[in-house]
Formats: sequence, structure tokens, C-alpha cells
Amino acid sequence: ENAIDLAVIAGDGIGPEVVAEGLKVLEAVTAGTGTKVTSTAYDLGAKRWNATGETLPDSVLDELRQHDVILLGAIGDPSVPSGVLERGILLPLRFALDHFVNLRPAKLFPGVESPLAIERVAPDGIDFVVVREGTEGPYVGNGGSLRTGTPHEIATEVSVNTRFGVERVVREAFSRAQARPRKHLTLVHKHNVLTHAGHLWRRTVEEVGTEFPDVETAYQHVDAATIFLATDPGRFDVVVTDNLFGDIITDIAAAIAGGIGLAASGNINPTGEAPSMFEPVHGSAPDIAGQGKADPTATILSVAMLLDHLGRTEESQRVEAAVAADLAERGSEVRTTSAIGDAVAERLS
Amino acid sequence: ENAIDLAVIAGDGIGPEVVAEGLKVLEAVTAGTGTKVTSTAYDLGAKRWNATGETLPDSVLDELRQHDVILLGAIGDPSVPSGVLERGILLPLRFALDHFVNLRPAKLFPGVESPLAIERVAPDGIDFVVVREGTEGPYVGNGGSLRTGTPHEIATEVSVNTRFGVERVVREAFSRAQARPRKHLTLVHKHNVLTHAGHLWRRTVEEVGTEFPDVETAYQHVDAATIFLATDPGRFDVVVTDNLFGDIITDIAAAIAGGIGLAASGNINPTGEAPSMFEPVHGSAPDIAGQGKADPTATILSVAMLLDHLGRTEESQRVEAAVAADLAERGSEVRTTSAIGDAVAERLS
Ligand SMILES: CC(C)[C@H](C(=O)O)[C@@H](O)C(=O)O
Ligand SMILES: CC(C)[C@H](C(=O)O)[C@@H](O)C(=O)O
Repeated sequence: ENAIDLAVIAGDGIGPEVVAEGLKVLEAVTAGTGTKVTSTAYDLGAKRWNATGETLPDSVLDELRQHDVILLGAIGDPSVPSGVLERGILLPLRFALDHFVNLRPAKLFPGVESPLAIERVAPDGIDFVVVREGTEGPYVGNGGSLRTGTPHEIATEVSVNTRFGVERVVREAFSRAQARPRKHLTLVHKHNVLTHAGHLWRRTVEEVGTEFPDVETAYQHVDAATIFLATDPGRFDVVVTDNLFGDIITDIAAAIAGGIGLAASGNINPTGEAPSMFEPVHGSAPDIAGQGKADPTATILSVAMLLDHLGRTEESQRVEAAVAADLAERGSEVRTTSAIGDAVAERLS
Repeated sequence: ENAIDLAVIAGDGIGPEVVAEGLKVLEAVTAGTGTKVTSTAYDLGAKRWNATGETLPDSVLDELRQHDVILLGAIGDPSVPSGVLERGILLPLRFALDHFVNLRPAKLFPGVESPLAIERVAPDGIDFVVVREGTEGPYVGNGGSLRTGTPHEIATEVSVNTRFGVERVVREAFSRAQARPRKHLTLVHKHNVLTHAGHLWRRTVEEVGTEFPDVETAYQHVDAATIFLATDPGRFDVVVTDNLFGDIITDIAAAIAGGIGLAASGNINPTGEAPSMFEPVHGSAPDIAGQGKADPTATILSVAMLLDHLGRTEESQRVEAAVAADLAERGSEVRTTSAIGDAVAERLS
């Protein structure tokens, strides 16, 4: 019970650097609590693919399943064709480990600069969380092409949505909304155009909503939602949406809350039948890799989410508070990756 | 030749009010040029549907085809179930009249307030145009559901993309980019996940690009594109993208360029085989309908696009300049719908 058995996939580019700081902070916050933190490194990513052609071997997937949780840095490199590692590692992990809740908080910390004119647009700040479905929708890889490369080519992509898949993520979103002071849930979809999938989502929100009578619900088409994210983000509390819409709006959410350098995420399997995986939303940023320029804050906040997922709420809150204090103090000062990790770790000692 | 034969679909909510101002400005800019403007009103929208159950009768579609261009206000009302009018009128018009170029400029006019911290984020202003594909992709209505309403429901939505459809819109986007000073074209897609459709788009941009050697191209995943729209919109010149991604990013584009009250659009069939249709991006806003509160600027700018489409470039530019002058003077003053139309028309007299 007082042990954390962690699988670590540092990955490519800045992945190893930011993960090192995440682990530093995890050590610091658990130090003196008698917690035994074990971390096992798994070598997945561009290097492995370039050397062996392997993405996610079954044997590695089996080993990953044995751990309590996974911490992932970033995956992707220009030496690998686009899509190979995403569809070979990241998405298979999310699908195989049934990470149906892709949780992405957007919180503007004091001292952090938003591209929005915040005083005007969000005077009460930004603090919402997107519950993105993680295992179906347009991400299922159900596409094809015919007469490829000819003037008669047809390419299709099929979004597959099930009541089972939608219901479980919607229930999770309601329960998260219920646990928050504002108790508000917004469904984001495009049911006036994508009627079949859209109505499934809509009906499910209505029906599951009867189990949560104290949660207020709203609906926004995805295009309108993006307008509100730019003009009135304070209206959002919990947002639930499908895999592709979630991909898009969580990047806007990250941008307005200070940038993807700060955006944490959890790929969560709430059943506990497989380990959940925590990762910064940003990519591997090969252009700045190895230079100590990457901001490890998103990874450190992902570690806070990881602790929360393990029921270590108090430690999670301490990490988040340390990050908040660091950000408030940091201002526009440019610090190295490890200097930021050190500063946060120090606040926890 | 010196005549404009216009079909007008005023539609629902604020549609008739804003269209009236658009027509006022059209009259003003063509006055004294000997141009004969004829406009024929077509009654489509919620009222017709409520009275007769009709959306877009074939006979009306046939009549619409006879006109040079169509001006549309807005369609939609809470009395009609979501999707009925969108999929019964708006989308059938775009598809039947083969409006494969959905053109949506995003320009921040002097004096207009953006939700972005503009001095910091876009010191050189915002001036780009999105070329959204208008006749295929996830909008084709190719979805279905099985075991609907049961725990075993499956709902699908199929995005259909053809080389024919992608190539013609990509070529149009290149040619628009070539005509602009910066000559830059960004493809927005998500080819690392939607590989079949994504690679069709990507290959097509590469291949058509050889016809436009002076146009520089870039690629952004849709999620990353939304970040840049919030943090560095000045980087965009012409953006080409599919129907659904275009729907989403043009709403963000409208938001950052001062709101959908100002966002114009053209549903263009560049072949001239069917009339093109110009419409404000905003909806019918039933909550403020009939109160003279709607901003007709988006419709007036749509009239400018309409004139440009008809080759009446000078008149188009005069309308845009009048709007720009009006916006610069307007400041935060609240004026009625017709006061704004009057002010713009007056500048043209
Ligand atoms: C890398 C890519 C496959 C991934 C996604 O689309 O989910 C990323 O954008 C994310 O949001 O985690
Ligand atoms: C009303 C709706 C069908 C439409 C669309 O999705 O295209 C609108 O959002 C738009 O962008 O013109």
C-alpha cells in the first residue's frame, strides 16, 4: 500500500528531460513518508523504432500492465514518418489499457500570462477540466482508401461511437462535475451535423443526468464552444466531449491557460483493471531537445494528477501548490528545465 | 451585364434584419452606376417548416439556380428540432449548388476589440482567410446507428474525401494564396490520426503545389493550429482545410477577429455552374430577434464578398472600406441594426 510502482516511458525529444524533473518532484513529495517509489524505464519511441522497427511490442505492453501507473514524457521525432509512433505507441496504449477518460484540466495560475486579454475576457480566472473520451470516436483507425494515388481516390474515416463507451465517460464526467463547487457540465459535440453520434451523446447525457440531479448541464456545438473558449472561458466547469473534439478543444484550453508548457493530462482507466497513464499535453519538441530549455511544469502537474489518481490527494495538492507558488514567483524569468524541477522540489522538502 | 439578379433567403431570427441592411448597402454602392439590382425573396426556414413541413423544395432549388448569386441571412429557430433546418436547407444548398469553396476571411479591423491581448500576441494584426472545403468530409451525412436507444447502440459517422473534391479546393486555395502579398498556404488536418483522409490532403497539397512554385506551404495539425490561432494568429495567410476542421477553426478565427458579429462568408462555386451564396457566419440569434440589436456588419461584409465574386472588385473594396471606417469610428458605441446599415450606406453615397 505504501509503495508506488511506476512505469516510465520517457520517450523522445524533451521527454527524458521533463520526466526526470517529474520524478524528482515525486521523490521530494513522498520523501519521509515511508513510501517506496520504484520506477521501471521502458524504452519506446523513435530510437527503438529506428533501431528495430518496433513500436509497442506485446511483451512490453504485458509488462506495463503490471505497474500501478505509467508516466510518459513525449513521443515523436522527425526521423519517423508522421503517424507511425502516434498510431504505434500512444494510441495503442490508450486503447489497450482502456484509458477511456482523458482528463485535461485548464487552470490559469496566478502570475501566468494568457494570450487572452484576461481582465476583460475572464476576470474571474480560468478553471475548468475537459473529460475527453479516449477510446473511440474518429480515433478508432477505421478508415481506408480506394484507388489511392489516382484522380479517383476516395478516402474515408469512420467515427465509431457506442452507448457503452459514451455512457461510461459521461458518467465519469458527471461525477467529476458533482465533486466540484459549481457542479456544471457542458457537452460539446456537433449534433446538428453529426446527427447519429451527436444524438447518442445527447441522449446519454440526458439519461445519465437523472443520476446527478444536482449537476446542471449545458450543450455547445464544438464551433461555438471554441468561440466561448476565446471570449468567455470562465463559463466552463467540466466539459465532456468525444475523442477528436476533445483533442482540439484541449489544445485551445491549454493555450488560453498559459500554454502547452503547463498543460497536464491523465489517460485514466477508472476501473483500475489496467494502469492509468499521465503525460504532458505537449509533444517531444525535437528543436529544443537536450538543451535544458523545456519547461517541465506540465510533467510535474501530470505527476500531481498521478498522485491524485492513486488516492494520494494530500501529496497531489502539495505538488500543485508548489507549482502554483513557483509560477507566481517565476514571472518572465527564463530558467532551465532542472532549475524549475529543483525549485518545485525544494518547496516540498 | 450591368445587372445583379439576387436571390435573397432572409431566414429566421435576426436574418431578415441583417439582410435588410446588406441590401441597403448594396443599393447604396451600386447607386448611380446604372446597375439594375433585382432581388427575389425566398421564404425558407423555421416559419415554412412549421407551417408546411417543407425545408428546401425542389421547385425552390430550381428557381434559386436561375439567379446570379444568393444572399442568406440566418436559418434556425428553437421551434424546430436541432439539425432539421441545417440538414434540410443550409447543407443541401451548399451541396446541391456545389459550393466547394467555403471562404471565410478573418481580419481584425482597426478599432475592433479582440479577446486576445493583441499588442502582445499579434502586434502586426490579423489578416488571413480560411478556405474550408464545403461539399464533403464528415459533412456528407453518411452515418447511421444500430440498436438505437439500447445499451448496445453503435453510432457511426463517415468522413468521405475524394481526390476530385480535395484537389479542386486545394487548387483554389493555392490560387488565392498566390494572389496575396505573402503567398503562404497552411494545410490544417490531423494526418497522424486520420491517416487516409489526411494523406490524401497532404499528397494533394504537395502535388498541386508544383503548379504554384511561388507559394510557400506549411502544415499544422488541427489541434496545434488552434493554439497558434490563440497565440500567434499573424502567422496565417491562407489556410485550407476540410469541412469539419474548417467549421471549427473559422469560429475561432471569427472570435479572435472581433466576434461573429463581424464574420462574413462565401459559399462559392468557382465554376459558375450554379450561384454562389454569401452569408454571415453567425446564426439566427432568436433571443435578440426583432429588437434592432443585431450587428449587420457580417452581412454587409458578405455583400462585399458577393460583389467581389461578381467581379465588381472596386465596389467590393468600397464597401469594405466603408465598414472599416465605420468600425474605426464606432468604438464601443451601441447602435441599432439599421443605424449601422445607414452609417455604412451613407459613406457610400
Ligand atoms: C499525438 C496525437 C496522436 C495526440 C492525440 O491526437 O490524441 C495528441 O495530440 C494529444 O492530444 O495527446
Ligand atoms: C449551422 C451549421 C450546419 C453550419 C456548419 O456547421 O457548417 C455553421 O456552423 C457554419 O459554420 O456555417
